[in-house]
Amino acid sequence: MKAKFNQIKSIPGAAPGIEHDEIVNLPAGSGQVSISCIDYSPEQVSMQEIADLDDFVSHHRPEWSVVRWICVEGFSDRHAIHALATKYDLHPLAVEDLLHGTQRPKVDSYGGEGSEFLARMFIVARALSIKDGRLQHEQVSIFLGHNTILTFQENRSIEWNPIRQRIKARGSRLRSNDASFLAYSLLDAIVDSTFPILEFYSDRAEDLEVLLLEHPSPKIINEIHQLKRDLLLLRWVIWPMREVVQVLQREVHECVSDTTRIYLRDLYDHVIQIIEIIETYREIASDLTETYMSSVSNRMNEIMKVLTVIGTIFIPLTFLAGVYGMNFRYFPELDQVWAYPVFWVICVIGAVTMLLVFRRRNWL
Amino acid sequence: MKAKFNQIKSIPGAAPGIEHDEIVNLPAGSGQVSISCIDYSPEQVSMQEIADLDDFVSHHRPEWSVVRWICVEGFSDRHAIHALATKYDLHPLAVEDLLHGTQRPKVDSYGGEGSEFLARMFIVARALSIKDGRLQHEQVSIFLGHNTILTFQENRSIEWNPIRQRIKARGSRLRSNDASFLAYSLLDAIVDSTFPILEFYSDRAEDLEVLLLEHPSPKIINEIHQLKRDLLLLRWVIWPMREVVQVLQREVHECVSDTTRIYLRDLYDHVIQIIEIIETYREIASDLTETYMSSVSNRMNEIMKVLTVIGTIFIPLTFLAGVYGMNFRYFPELDQVWAYPVFWVICVIGAVTMLLVFRRRNWL
Amino acid sequence: MKAKFNQIKSIPGAAPGIEHDEIVNLPAGSGQVSISCIDYSPEQVSMQEIADLDDFVSHHRPEWSVVRWICVEGFSDRHAIHALATKYDLHPLAVEDLLHGTQRPKVDSYGGEGSEFLARMFIVARALSIKDGRLQHEQVSIFLGHNTILTFQENRSIEWNPIRQRIKARGSRLRSNDASFLAYSLLDAIVDSTFPILEFYSDRAEDLEVLLLEHPSPKIINEIHQLKRDLLLLRWVIWPMREVVQVLQREVHECVSDTTRIYLRDLYDHVIQIIEIIETYREIASDLTETYMSSVSNRMNEIMKVLTVIGTIFIPLTFLAGVYGMNFRYFPELDQVWAYPVFWVICVIGAVTMLLVFRRRNWL
Amino acid sequence: MKAKFNQIKSIPGAAPGIEHDEIVNLPAGSGQVSISCIDYSPEQVSMQEIADLDDFVSHHRPEWSVVRWICVEGFSDRHAIHALATKYDLHPLAVEDLLHGTQRPKVDSYGGEGSEFLARMFIVARALSIKDGRLQHEQVSIFLGHNTILTFQENRSIEWNPIRQRIKARGSRLRSNDASFLAYSLLDAIVDSTFPILEFYSDRAEDLEVLLLEHPSPKIINEIHQLKRDLLLLRWVIWPMREVVQVLQREVHECVSDTTRIYLRDLYDHVIQIIEIIETYREIASDLTETYMSSVSNRMNEIMKVLTVIGTIFIPLTFLAGVYGMNFRYFPELDQVWAYPVFWVICVIGAVTMLLVFRRRNWL
Amino acid sequence: MKAKFNQIKSIPGAAPGIEHDEIVNLPAGSGQVSISCIDYSPEQVSMQEIADLDDFVSHHRPEWSVVRWICVEGFSDRHAIHALATKYDLHPLAVEDLLHGTQRPKVDSYGGEGSEFLARMFIVARALSIKDGRLQHEQVSIFLGHNTILTFQENRSIEWNPIRQRIKARGSRLRSNDASFLAYSLLDAIVDSTFPILEFYSDRAEDLEVLLLEHPSPKIINEIHQLKRDLLLLRWVIWPMREVVQVLQREVHECVSDTTRIYLRDLYDHVIQIIEIIETYREIASDLTETYMSSVSNRMNEIMKVLTVIGTIFIPLTFLAGVYGMNFRYFPELDQVWAYPVFWVICVIGAVTMLLVFRRRNWL
Repeated sequence: MKAKFNQIKSIPGAAPGIEHDEIVNLPAGSGQVSISCIDYSPEQVSMQEIADLDDFVSHHRPEWSVVRWICVEGFSDRHAIHALATKYDLHPLAVEDLLHGTQRPKVDSYGGEGSEFLARMFIVARALSIKDGRLQHEQVSIFLGHNTILTFQENRSIEWNPIRQRIKARGSRLRSNDASFLAYSLLDAIVDSTFPILEFYSDRAEDLEVLLLEHPSPKIINEIHQLKRDLLLLRWVIWPMREVVQVLQREVHECVSDTTRIYLRDLYDHVIQIIEIIETYREIASDLTETYMSSVSNRMNEIMKVLTVIGTIFIPLTFLAGVYGMNFRYFPELDQVWAYPVFWVICVIGAVTMLLVFRRRNWL
Repeated sequence: MKAKFNQIKSIPGAAPGIEHDEIVNLPAGSGQVSISCIDYSPEQVSMQEIADLDDFVSHHRPEWSVVRWICVEGFSDRHAIHALATKYDLHPLAVEDLLHGTQRPKVDSYGGEGSEFLARMFIVARALSIKDGRLQHEQVSIFLGHNTILTFQENRSIEWNPIRQRIKARGSRLRSNDASFLAYSLLDAIVDSTFPILEFYSDRAEDLEVLLLEHPSPKIINEIHQLKRDLLLLRWVIWPMREVVQVLQREVHECVSDTTRIYLRDLYDHVIQIIEIIETYREIASDLTETYMSSVSNRMNEIMKVLTVIGTIFIPLTFLAGVYGMNFRYFPELDQVWAYPVFWVICVIGAVTMLLVFRRRNWL
Repeated sequence: MKAKFNQIKSIPGAAPGIEHDEIVNLPAGSGQVSISCIDYSPEQVSMQEIADLDDFVSHHRPEWSVVRWICVEGFSDRHAIHALATKYDLHPLAVEDLLHGTQRPKVDSYGGEGSEFLARMFIVARALSIKDGRLQHEQVSIFLGHNTILTFQENRSIEWNPIRQRIKARGSRLRSNDASFLAYSLLDAIVDSTFPILEFYSDRAEDLEVLLLEHPSPKIINEIHQLKRDLLLLRWVIWPMREVVQVLQREVHECVSDTTRIYLRDLYDHVIQIIEIIETYREIASDLTETYMSSVSNRMNEIMKVLTVIGTIFIPLTFLAGVYGMNFRYFPELDQVWAYPVFWVICVIGAVTMLLVFRRRNWL
Repeated sequence: MKAKFNQIKSIPGAAPGIEHDEIVNLPAGSGQVSISCIDYSPEQVSMQEIADLDDFVSHHRPEWSVVRWICVEGFSDRHAIHALATKYDLHPLAVEDLLHGTQRPKVDSYGGEGSEFLARMFIVARALSIKDGRLQHEQVSIFLGHNTILTFQENRSIEWNPIRQRIKARGSRLRSNDASFLAYSLLDAIVDSTFPILEFYSDRAEDLEVLLLEHPSPKIINEIHQLKRDLLLLRWVIWPMREVVQVLQREVHECVSDTTRIYLRDLYDHVIQIIEIIETYREIASDLTETYMSSVSNRMNEIMKVLTVIGTIFIPLTFLAGVYGMNFRYFPELDQVWAYPVFWVICVIGAVTMLLVFRRRNWL
Repeated sequence: MKAKFNQIKSIPGAAPGIEHDEIVNLPAGSGQVSISCIDYSPEQVSMQEIADLDDFVSHHRPEWSVVRWICVEGFSDRHAIHALATKYDLHPLAVEDLLHGTQRPKVDSYGGEGSEFLARMFIVARALSIKDGRLQHEQVSIFLGHNTILTFQENRSIEWNPIRQRIKARGSRLRSNDASFLAYSLLDAIVDSTFPILEFYSDRAEDLEVLLLEHPSPKIINEIHQLKRDLLLLRWVIWPMREVVQVLQREVHECVSDTTRIYLRDLYDHVIQIIEIIETYREIASDLTETYMSSVSNRMNEIMKVLTVIGTIFIPLTFLAGVYGMNFRYFPELDQVWAYPVFWVICVIGAVTMLLVFRRRNWL
């Protein structure tokens, strides 16, 4: 659990945000770093892996470039992040959110008309994936400027290749549009990656239900419990995306074009659909618990019925057998020839009567 | 379950929407296609089945035609859909929603005043039906222009014939109004088709309740479970219709006339009434589970009472019989003539006392 | 149940509303019809039963009449309804709602300033009553014009006589005000008729609680179930009244005077109070179920305690008696004179010890 | 229960409000009446018990009087109420609310700027108290004019003496402010009288919890039930106070001064705090029920464990003893010298094995 | 419990607020008092412990001082509080809230543009801490002026040292900003101190879950109960912080700078994140109770199965043994040589058959 609902780890009273100068002093993480840069315009496209970032930031982009997308995967190279933060003047609070990687999805807009700063948007999303049957999620941070996009993720939990393909495809809608459309496409990829996960949980709920009706075992309640918790986590990740997309779509911001806004409406529908499916699954999971409890009660009833039927038939007969096992000297029945057969007749009649009573009560 | 809460199946990162050129390349589905066209004005009406769509789209509508309704049933003819999408310039996102058939009900409006595009509305509804006791639902897509309506559904799960009859009837309110009134009439037919389904579930809930009180069996809890899930699905389909009708009624759009708006208010009342009935049934279904659980507990009580009554009466008596079955050599009672009758007297008194105690405790 | 949450019975796809010409063709219901007309002004009042409606509608109202109230009870005379619908130009949708009698409470306003039609309000309310211990409700439809009110109800489930008395009373507030005040008075009568019903359910809940504590029997859970369902129905009827009164009070409409608006505020308070009481009773009913379940569990505990106490005392003793009933040839104890008394001493000591243990555990 | 959620007792269809002339004809209640009048200004204060009200209302207030507070306790003197209602022109609806004493807290404002009437506010609050361990509440009605306040309560369930003391205290904030500040002070006294009651319920919940853990008896569930119902009633009384204070604070009304508005913000905080504490206690009470149910289940487990342990050990042994009590002629074991000791060895081994099994399963 | 949801202890009817003159007369509390004053500007900083407050308040601040922060820890020196309240003209209501220390978090703003008073904000927050495994919380009161901040807390439950360090650090963002940024930093420290507490509860929930699956004992339900109550208290403390931060961020107030507003947005995200985590934990705690109940039911099933298996096998066999222990004179079987072995064969066959039946029912 601790690993899942990530929390902001901060020293109470410490300064908020991470200043650009502090970035370099942070303990360098481990893991590979891959920084790539894509420039494209409707006519042209160029992709490069960046090895020497200092060299890269000192050059201007080619003139034909309409959109530049710098994609950072892995945070261990603190110098690279410092160079980008300085070059693109990222806000200290955004840098903190970016590096901590524990933010819930949100969108912040900085600057713009009437402000001395350039208009910027900082979008935080979380990419979901299933690894070894466990739900994982990782922060994806997107900086959106007028014609530049920076994306940051630590572990490559979402693959950008399909989007790179669409950029390469001449005449594609993505290639012909602006940076905000690229941002939309990235968010769309993140949101749509939730659908296979929903299917995974749909299958799991169905399996559990079948199991529940066939072999209600105590392990199932733990599985249902786990399912509920995963759905809780799913909701925790997806719910704020609703607000993110709504803000992007509704609030006018100079970085977001009208075409993008129409597509964001479609994305909003997807997010709503996902949220509704999650809520539905949560209700189904609750019903599963209820069904489990009632199946346990039913089994208890079955068990008790068996004991009661056996007990009710044999306990009185055992008493009767006990009576004729007594050693009283004057015991008239014992001497009769008919006594033993009559005993059996009484036993059979008693047992049959009991069985009929139970059948009438629907116990058999 | 998987089959019911349909999900958007999309490859994460794939391009959003379906461009007109892509339609033809989609794998052609199976099933019949039927495309019909109705033109009508208060004075005149003409209906035709369209066999050669290319020929059809190359002609203009007759001049007297006030409203043209093109009704497509079945999607397997990709060329026909491509031809219509091109002729009526349908938005790629709308084409995607149309073909996937997994959208929740919604309404999107495009273009209109101050925009370079023509005003359009794209309405998605879901038609409900009961087949073999199972709840089915299918997407119905409606494109509404100034004087044209296109409807698309895959399996003819809702019959438009009553509406066609009303168009044929000279002087009918539908015939005398514009395209938006036809759109309203289609939505009204879809919404009203829910009432027989509600009645079906009302009957089922009532049957379950009677069964519950007469023969509470474990199968019933599964039936209640199924009822709950169907109501969940019903709500999932109907709930967004509320918003659809509200948006159509409240937001001013040049395609929707004032007369239609008054009728939409009535439709809105119907949707609200359906939603309230569904919620009420959901509460009743919850109560049924509760009643089931308490009836199971009651039966358990009954069972245990029987065991306890039998046990409490006979266990002590069996002990007594056991005592006089012991083989101690010096056993004064055994030699008494009165011993055996006294034993029975003690047994009867003990049993009767117990029965009186139980009666006082309301156990019998 | 089916009889209670009435549903709109309509053929999907059928035309919405009932045109004036269609009224006459509807199958005539059975039952008596009573149509009365009251004209009043602060100075004068006249009441008449209308036998010949055609004659009546062809005349104008007397000049002194400030408010005319036409009160229709029973719908079997289709011609009368047709005549009134034509004379007062009732909207087809309103006529449909009126005749079907299955609408939830609502208020629709037509026409008014800037419209070609006269200002009208169509108010639907539902009158509640208890018949043979069962909750009944019936639709009351009110058409409000500038100085005319039409009321329609099928079964006279609410009595207008107290209101007629107040109209007859010279100088009464009702007599001195306009048509909207009469409409308010009618709604007030409908709403206030709920208070005795609330008291009925308050008594019933109290009775159930007493019963529950004294004789918790399985029948009570059904009674609680029925109580819950009746409260659900009550809420279903009253809840939309809140909106009706609020709309009447808040939205400015030329048919509603300022004086009426002040009185509607009071009516709104009453409706809120009723809703809160219903919600409170619903919570109390839920608590009753909980109490029932815990009382059932307690009884189970009692039952099991008895069985366990008896079993725990006598099962070991029976074993001991069985031991000394064995027929081993070499069985030293059997020959001792002290054996039998010692056996009893052991039995008594064992039983007393057990009883002390149980007492310490609070089982006795 | 009936006595607690008071309901408006009105004859359906009866005229709304109580006209001034009708007051005198109402059946006179019993009980003492005490009417007092306080006039004060920053410099001067005068208090008088009013015996002859007719005389009192015929005089004007002294010129120096800034605020006049007429305080009525007890309603049995109908003439007095009629005199006051006439003199201060109270609205018939307000008089009805005042005399019925069953209103939920609310605030109504009449007249004011642009109206022919004088600005007035009619505030209904409910004073809570604990009598003999039961929650009581009574209506306190406050009429607020520009410089006059009338308060009405039937049973003196709240004491105004502390407020009278503050008026007498020269230079007190209350003395230096206007009538609305006095109204605020009265409401503040009513709201603050809830805090000791909350403490009472806090103690009670704590006591119940301790009892629950020590001696879970069926009586406790009834106590929890009672606690829940009292909290329901508390909420029912306090919840609308939130709206009352908010309306007084937010909506500009000429009778409420700016200074009072600042103090009302503080009162609003108190009301919110009370509501949150009530909600918290309600959740705690729900948890108590849950804890009770789980403690009952635990006890059941304990009971069944004892029966099962005893039964599982002795039932097989009793069978064995029964076997060697059989009277077969050819019964080899019976003749062996070692048979009887071996029997005991088997019994002891069997019993010890069982006990070890139970210990491993944590049953002992 | 009583100690946790602190309540305003006030005498109903007593005057609201604490006038400056009354402060000195309040009973002096015990405990140490520490008052410190920090003046800082981007260039300079001075910190002093104040021993003689009267001397201190009579002097003006140094001219270079941009922000002055007076930090009071401990309330026992009533004279000091009186001196500060007078010097900074604190509102009587704020003084009352400050000294009672039972306020829920809130923000009040006084004065400002268009008012005769200086603009002031009074912010109440609550600092959380864990002491001896129990959740503690204490009120922190902050007065914010244009360039002055006063903070009051009774027990130093939150440490300001990290913030003092940041003030001392030349060039730090805190040092370069205004008083509102200091207020933000204090609130940020208070909010961030909640994260370790959340982690504490996350660990505790995880521990409980592991325990529940391994050794479900009645003590655990009490621990879950305690966890739930602590989360309730956490929510009670944090929930109003959301509103506090939102008000500070959204509502324009001359004391809050634009830079601070951007940082408050970040703080708002933190508060939302905390609230969501608390809600998630609450759902997890509810699930734990459910899991506990189902594990208790499962154990009951296990226990009953054992009893039933033993009973069902041995009770009939004991009857059989009883039969052949009877003393009838004419008892043909007893004399047969094969009888005894056959008896055992029957017993073994019966027992094995039962075991097979149980295995098929999944009872073994």
